[in-house]
Amino acid sequence: MKRIFEIDPWVIKSRTLTPEDKRLQESLTAIGNGYMGMRGNFEEGYSGDHLQGTYLAGVWYPDKTRVGWWKNGYPEYFGKAINAPSFIDFGLTLNGVKIDLATLQPSDFSLELDMHQGLLTRSFVVEAGGAKVRLTFQRFLSNEIKEAGLIKLTAEALTGTATLTATPALDGNVVNEDSNYEDGFWQPLGENSEAETIQLITKPNPFKVPQFSVLLKQHTTLNGQPLQGTASATSGRVQREASFTLAAGETAELVKTVIVVTSRDVASEDQGEAAAKLMAQALDAGWTGLLDAQTAIWAKRWALSDVVIDGDDAAQQGIRFNIFQLFMTYYGEDKRLNIGPKGFTGEKYGGATYWDTEAYIVPMYLATTKPDVTRALLQYRHDQLPGAYHNAQQQGLAGALFPMVTFNGIECHNEWEITFEEIHRNGAIAFAIKQYTDYTGDESYVNETGIDVLVGISRFWADRVHFSQRQGQYMIHGVTGPNEYENNVNNNWYTNTMAQWTLQYTLARLPKADKAVVEKLAVSDEEKAHWQDIIDRMYFPEDKDLGIFVQHDTFLDKDLRPASSIPADQRPINQHWSWDHILRSPYIKQADVLQGIYFLNDRFTREQKEKNFDFYEPLTVHESSLSASIHAILAAELGKEDKAVELYARTARLDLDNYNNDTTDGLHITSMSGSWLAIVQGFAGMRDNDDQLSFKPFLPKDWTHYSFKILYRGRTLAISVTREGTDIALVAGPALTVVVNGKAVALPGAER
Amino acid sequence: MKRIFEIDPWVIKSRTLTPEDKRLQESLTAIGNGYMGMRGNFEEGYSGDHLQGTYLAGVWYPDKTRVGWWKNGYPEYFGKAINAPSFIDFGLTLNGVKIDLATLQPSDFSLELDMHQGLLTRSFVVEAGGAKVRLTFQRFLSNEIKEAGLIKLTAEALTGTATLTATPALDGNVVNEDSNYEDGFWQPLGENSEAETIQLITKPNPFKVPQFSVLLKQHTTLNGQPLQGTASATSGRVQREASFTLAAGETAELVKTVIVVTSRDVASEDQGEAAAKLMAQALDAGWTGLLDAQTAIWAKRWALSDVVIDGDDAAQQGIRFNIFQLFMTYYGEDKRLNIGPKGFTGEKYGGATYWDTEAYIVPMYLATTKPDVTRALLQYRHDQLPGAYHNAQQQGLAGALFPMVTFNGIECHNEWEITFEEIHRNGAIAFAIKQYTDYTGDESYVNETGIDVLVGISRFWADRVHFSQRQGQYMIHGVTGPNEYENNVNNNWYTNTMAQWTLQYTLARLPKADKAVVEKLAVSDEEKAHWQDIIDRMYFPEDKDLGIFVQHDTFLDKDLRPASSIPADQRPINQHWSWDHILRSPYIKQADVLQGIYFLNDRFTREQKEKNFDFYEPLTVHESSLSASIHAILAAELGKEDKAVELYARTARLDLDNYNNDTTDGLHITSMSGSWLAIVQGFAGMRDNDDQLSFKPFLPKDWTHYSFKILYRGRTLAISVTREGTDIALVAGPALTVVVNGKAVALPGAER
Repeated sequence: MKRIFEIDPWVIKSRTLTPEDKRLQESLTAIGNGYMGMRGNFEEGYSGDHLQGTYLAGVWYPDKTRVGWWKNGYPEYFGKAINAPSFIDFGLTLNGVKIDLATLQPSDFSLELDMHQGLLTRSFVVEAGGAKVRLTFQRFLSNEIKEAGLIKLTAEALTGTATLTATPALDGNVVNEDSNYEDGFWQPLGENSEAETIQLITKPNPFKVPQFSVLLKQHTTLNGQPLQGTASATSGRVQREASFTLAAGETAELVKTVIVVTSRDVASEDQGEAAAKLMAQALDAGWTGLLDAQTAIWAKRWALSDVVIDGDDAAQQGIRFNIFQLFMTYYGEDKRLNIGPKGFTGEKYGGATYWDTEAYIVPMYLATTKPDVTRALLQYRHDQLPGAYHNAQQQGLAGALFPMVTFNGIECHNEWEITFEEIHRNGAIAFAIKQYTDYTGDESYVNETGIDVLVGISRFWADRVHFSQRQGQYMIHGVTGPNEYENNVNNNWYTNTMAQWTLQYTLARLPKADKAVVEKLAVSDEEKAHWQDIIDRMYFPEDKDLGIFVQHDTFLDKDLRPASSIPADQRPINQHWSWDHILRSPYIKQADVLQGIYFLNDRFTREQKEKNFDFYEPLTVHESSLSASIHAILAAELGKEDKAVELYARTARLDLDNYNNDTTDGLHITSMSGSWLAIVQGFAGMRDNDDQLSFKPFLPKDWTHYSFKILYRGRTLAISVTREGTDIALVAGPALTVVVNGKAVALPGAER
Repeated sequence: MKRIFEIDPWVIKSRTLTPEDKRLQESLTAIGNGYMGMRGNFEEGYSGDHLQGTYLAGVWYPDKTRVGWWKNGYPEYFGKAINAPSFIDFGLTLNGVKIDLATLQPSDFSLELDMHQGLLTRSFVVEAGGAKVRLTFQRFLSNEIKEAGLIKLTAEALTGTATLTATPALDGNVVNEDSNYEDGFWQPLGENSEAETIQLITKPNPFKVPQFSVLLKQHTTLNGQPLQGTASATSGRVQREASFTLAAGETAELVKTVIVVTSRDVASEDQGEAAAKLMAQALDAGWTGLLDAQTAIWAKRWALSDVVIDGDDAAQQGIRFNIFQLFMTYYGEDKRLNIGPKGFTGEKYGGATYWDTEAYIVPMYLATTKPDVTRALLQYRHDQLPGAYHNAQQQGLAGALFPMVTFNGIECHNEWEITFEEIHRNGAIAFAIKQYTDYTGDESYVNETGIDVLVGISRFWADRVHFSQRQGQYMIHGVTGPNEYENNVNNNWYTNTMAQWTLQYTLARLPKADKAVVEKLAVSDEEKAHWQDIIDRMYFPEDKDLGIFVQHDTFLDKDLRPASSIPADQRPINQHWSWDHILRSPYIKQADVLQGIYFLNDRFTREQKEKNFDFYEPLTVHESSLSASIHAILAAELGKEDKAVELYARTARLDLDNYNNDTTDGLHITSMSGSWLAIVQGFAGMRDNDDQLSFKPFLPKDWTHYSFKILYRGRTLAISVTREGTDIALVAGPALTVVVNGKAVALPGAER
């Protein structure tokens, strides 16, 4: 655990710069606009250890897979979010001395990321050649013109005469730190020093993945006038170099505007023209115009989604930071995109899409954004069905196996114990369709489109089970459950449960689905009967004495000791123990049986929930970012308030406090919804079973108040919880009856 | 299955050259002399698809490991037998046309590998520029001067005038086809065209593995006189080019002598001088002298180890080929070496040493070579104990974990499911000590040296088990048994059995071991009591109803159908099925439970053996080269003669008939002892339990006779089995009583 930024409800700020925390600082000050994003790298460069990272949504490269010994069914490549050309570069010298905070000692340093709109401001004083200058960099990525990024440098001479040389540049000579073969992924297509553009294309690949091209264009002003000086280009790089002198007390303002266009939207040959047009628009709007628009867009988002907490500023900052980072990553504008586990904040995990989206993000987006945003996430999977059929076929199986990691539907992770064993993901992808349908009441998606996905997944499960003659039951062998601290187990209770559930839900939905779609799917009566047989005779490991569902066949044979018995200096265990030690240990990385109880919440008795929670939570080390939130919700439901609050803190401030000692690699974007879930489904106890919205709130003892809004079936509700009780108001939309603490509360309709 | 060489008792020969079988041809005509070896590449080069391969025993490189996601305890590198500089090169043009059998059509082609001494002869007629010439290449690697290789080219002009240009060369510009990062492993140290030497060194590595240097020197004669012409050098390569003209009927004879010296024996700076001395010796002895010496050495080897089969030439050729290849790989001369799975015939599997040596080769070497040869193999493991302790420590475990693949004792394979899960290898390494001790009657090794290994392995087992509170028994979770078609299983019966056996044997040997050694090992009474507790309370999966030991905890839950139900076009399954399909299937790659029954043969009743054999063999696909022999032995013991003979054929001709469609990569050297075991332990039923040698022979119905010799405690016995019965004679050594078909037979002593 390490906290390098101050507690503040709206700003991530620090007045110190510590070289050993540079990567952590970069992760926590990342910004994005759904189209592109970058880590908190320094504009003027930094020669110390750091991780350079700029990322363009949907621009990726199929890196040759690295495995020990190739076997049939292994994926051929590992798709990677590419480190894109850097466009913040703003080289600077002061009286001939290069500005580099790794070598110069700045004074009066401050760094602030304002969550109202995503404005990153860095200011510091440096001294060289007899002059003292305050430099202030500000940048944001526009939500108004998604291709535009703006950087402002304000230089104020404090004492002495300062001759500054500025070198705004675009640099395509970048590499992925995690390239499997230490290869670069880009090759230059050309540079134009006059137009100040560079164009690059991803290297050819043998996997039939299309190459992406990208064109970047920059324009810089000095005190409102185009920056003069010399423009020059080298392979993959263009820069303009200009010098100016400030006497003490004088100030100069440079604004660098950048446009980034990719072949996802504009063909290579048209990119120059498109970029020029967008640049004209951006320059026309200017720094102030675009920043004002940005603030207005974010104000609307916050109005819908903000969660206010009084009495605990750390908790407040945590949840705002999470919502802010999530929305910077994805706000549904581009249906071809999904939510990568590191968003625009790092390159680890490579791929764009994990089951995290369906399992952890969908419920939050359903309540905080318009239904279209979530529907786009579902549609993304439907669009990738051919890839899912391909993945199953690679294993010799029928139906659709959605990938563990992907950009295009085809599996691109490269550990067999994950790719073709962590198949429970298929269940969560089906379950998200139910969640959308139940929450919105909109059946059109499942009936017209989602049914394809459900049938594809059901066909996979039906082929993936086998019938054990000895037990007279269907089993699923060779899986990895949500607990990735075990591999290749048999009859993971969660996986078997979600497989059975998918078959049940598909059989229930088929009669209601669009006739033409159903006809094409051609599910025979025999097939349906077989699915029903699997439902009826599915095997589930249970221990009647303990009153628990068993994580998998032999879990109870382990040496079962609570996680509290692990010495503190051996945590997190994944950084201290061998993989052998971890696999054989009873320690659970994230909710596994409890994930199933969370999903199918209304299937289980309170006693079942309690016994399973009391058995599994003490064995859980919460070393997945996806763990604490689910446990917080169940703890809240079971009245274990202290536990719920402890786990909330862990999920809300996972990155801000670097709980798992890995935020240096980037933020845990896809688990950021967990803090929202912990408050809304946990502390406020929101459920939406059987078309009935209900709440069962409590207020953590150190808090004085929390409130949030939710969207529900054309309505906006405001929920406020204080020591005095819960206040639920219908802010907009027709009348609705909700259940609070078991009692029906009729909310009158309200004007929108 | 594919057979490209003719049946012949002593020669591997063919009169055809088929481009698509080039790699197979190269594997089957590989030669070696324990110090170095090479595939059957062509001296004049070959531009078609082939696998160039020259290998020097003990010269290796730690290639960066390839895995998807690094985890603690994974090995850092994958040690590879390096493809060494090629020294057979003998470029040739005929009237200006390059001789290349991929482009020219030779006539009257023949290729023969004579197993009497390892002489490879290739002869063919080519025509170019109006001349027709017969070219005959012969080569062997000397067993008299291990650093020497000799190649003779006889060129006979049949019609026309033939101007030949010969370019004998040494070429260090070679790569490993299986390099993980497509890197080369060598860098040139220098070339000397006058001395006709090249010297290279393996690239530096970050793993503290020493660099190896190697110097090669060549000398060529034409009709007995030094070859003139021009010597020249380029980086890593030296050659001499000379032309000569033959009128029709004329013959020229070129002999190229090569010396290869490595830093394993001679420091880099002394290699030139050492090579010059060795060259002088080799030239002094000459082609005929060295070949005669070679034949004499091999005659002695064959006198001890030949197995004669009458009535089945294919069976005869198979076993001779196997013995021949094994002895070309290892004959115990260098205690720093072991027996790599591909010997000198290919680069696949990379490493030098697998458990194959102890499990499959030791029993054969014990009976066919002097005890020192086997003792050297045991000593090799003892010398590598520090590496084994290191391997265990990497997993956070006590004691010694011998590696799955190694050159120096440190694990260098790169699949976690093998490296730290296939730990049963530790059992075989301990068991080889018992085999040596029991067979030779020599207790000095175990008492003075082997006890270190036994205690190290026992300490590993004692830490690797865990106590299951629920079952009240010790268990071993997370292992891969000998059946590598399953991974990460719990309580593999074989592994648990060998772990218990090791603890028992170690406790039994400790009181007899050398006092000083035992003192250093400091095994406390408490530790011994703990070992005894593990022995007493070890858990073994069994099924009383079926009367079998169960391969691992959940094996019987599988969809159990016999291997005969697999369609023929899906065999071998490892080339047709996904790894997911294979892991979940009930199919067994090689003996697993049966391996334990084979090792601890005298512990089990005939009924137990039979029930387990009848249950497991039908599920076994024998896709490991190590499988058929063990099954053949057990089948023979159980009177299943047809099965035994079928499996013998498979093990004896595995490579000659390319049973598993993978001999292109190289020969299965370490399983070649299997055919010998199948005849001696199987057909002849030899056992050596409790200091009593016994036999229970049968004669396969298509054979008329077989005979072999064995060495046993200072004696040489000759066993001959015919339709009339078994004849056992003591050829040399003091009197001995053996048991034949349950009856004691006293053999009078014989002069040596």
